[in-house]
Amino acid sequence: MIKIVIIGSGNVALHLIHAFTKSKEIEVSQVFSRRKEAIFPLLDSSKITDNFNDLVEADLYIISVSDDAISKVSSQLPFENHLVVHTSGSVPMNSLDDKNRKGIFYPLQTFTKGKEVDFKPIPICLESENESDFDLLEKVAKSISNSAFKSDKKQRKALHIAAVFVNNFVNEMYRIGNEICDENKIPFEILKPLILETVNKVMTLSPKEAQTGPAKRNDQQTIEAHLDFLSNENHTTIYKILTQSIQNNGKEL
Amino acid sequence: MIKIVIIGSGNVALHLIHAFTKSKEIEVSQVFSRRKEAIFPLLDSSKITDNFNDLVEADLYIISVSDDAISKVSSQLPFENHLVVHTSGSVPMNSLDDKNRKGIFYPLQTFTKGKEVDFKPIPICLESENESDFDLLEKVAKSISNSAFKSDKKQRKALHIAAVFVNNFVNEMYRIGNEICDENKIPFEILKPLILETVNKVMTLSPKEAQTGPAKRNDQQTIEAHLDFLSNENHTTIYKILTQSIQNNGKEL
Repeated sequence: MIKIVIIGSGNVALHLIHAFTKSKEIEVSQVFSRRKEAIFPLLDSSKITDNFNDLVEADLYIISVSDDAISKVSSQLPFENHLVVHTSGSVPMNSLDDKNRKGIFYPLQTFTKGKEVDFKPIPICLESENESDFDLLEKVAKSISNSAFKSDKKQRKALHIAAVFVNNFVNEMYRIGNEICDENKIPFEILKPLILETVNKVMTLSPKEAQTGPAKRNDQQTIEAHLDFLSNENHTTIYKILTQSIQNNGKEL
Repeated sequence: MIKIVIIGSGNVALHLIHAFTKSKEIEVSQVFSRRKEAIFPLLDSSKITDNFNDLVEADLYIISVSDDAISKVSSQLPFENHLVVHTSGSVPMNSLDDKNRKGIFYPLQTFTKGKEVDFKPIPICLESENESDFDLLEKVAKSISNSAFKSDKKQRKALHIAAVFVNNFVNEMYRIGNEICDENKIPFEILKPLILETVNKVMTLSPKEAQTGPAKRNDQQTIEAHLDFLSNENHTTIYKILTQSIQNNGKEL
């Protein structure tokens, strides 16, 4: 059994605890949290501590707190030369305190509070300061996921940015679609089959091949009619820039 | 049986023919196409014509051709006072020739050549010049879809624009995500679980509630690190504008 201590009780921490407690190869030895009540249903309360000095011995310490708290938490750990990783896509590995061996355990997913997530398909990006620590990280990742990915610093940053595009920015397109529906007394529901099919397409086609619509067709008349119709300046700006992006990059096909 | 003639053999026409031939309430009496070979597997060749003068009598004529050909095709029809609709999201109803009764039959979906589509969940937006024609359009729509939607001119335009945001622009976000992966030697596959979960979320939460990420958190440090990292000017422009859009509109929550 690989012994793990998880530090944190945010969204990612809770989902990790949930996944690890179901794994046969992993023992969640302890969780550090100032909010016992958040963890309690997942773990026996004797295994929850809010005192760094009470942390037990483990093979791996996973710090899963907000980005700006990672550095401070890592320096508060009362031991040395243990394997300590964080779960952030954007914080550098060397933000972790030098007194321990460093690594990254970054699950590439958007977690919703209270919504169970199947970890199996979720890619987990792994980095380790010492090559000898990588095997353990990989074992831990594979105990909950089918997809462990050895990344480097640059790749993890690139992935985090790509994730912003395909998650946050996609969601912003949905929000604007919803806003346009609301303004015109159309239920947002009506867009959902199209939203689903748009995703289905890129599961088998590349996004470039999957593209359709007025920008791709260079249908200037429709584009101008749309811009005429839009009264919200934010919508107009985004419409123009993304139309241009499609038109410029479609050419490379 | 409601008799239908379909004029056109593009993507939408083919998917409609396919759906109607499976409906028990609809008879596809004829298809007008200059490319018999495109239609042939779907319909007996005796029912395919490429001569407007050979068009048979029907309850409904569906013009499903490219936007800029709709007007011309409708004026070439050799009869009067029949119900004639088109399937475009952006062409006004009055682009159809005055000699026939006009309507709209606009399925809100993205169709891929050769990929079968289940019409049942696809919303079909219906408009008719004469109220007395609406019932027939609704019957025809309901013969293939669970979701017939009575729209007006403004709503159809709004829906078409909303569709550009949630389909074409979302797909452009996927293309950029793919591009960032390629530039950093990361398989695009790795983003797919995140892409799927992003969509899953808005099936139950509103896009505003579903939003996460650095823009939503006003995490200026991560935003600046991302902008520093991006070297492609198009990516940078889009990143800035969509981050701003999320930040400005998150406030309304």
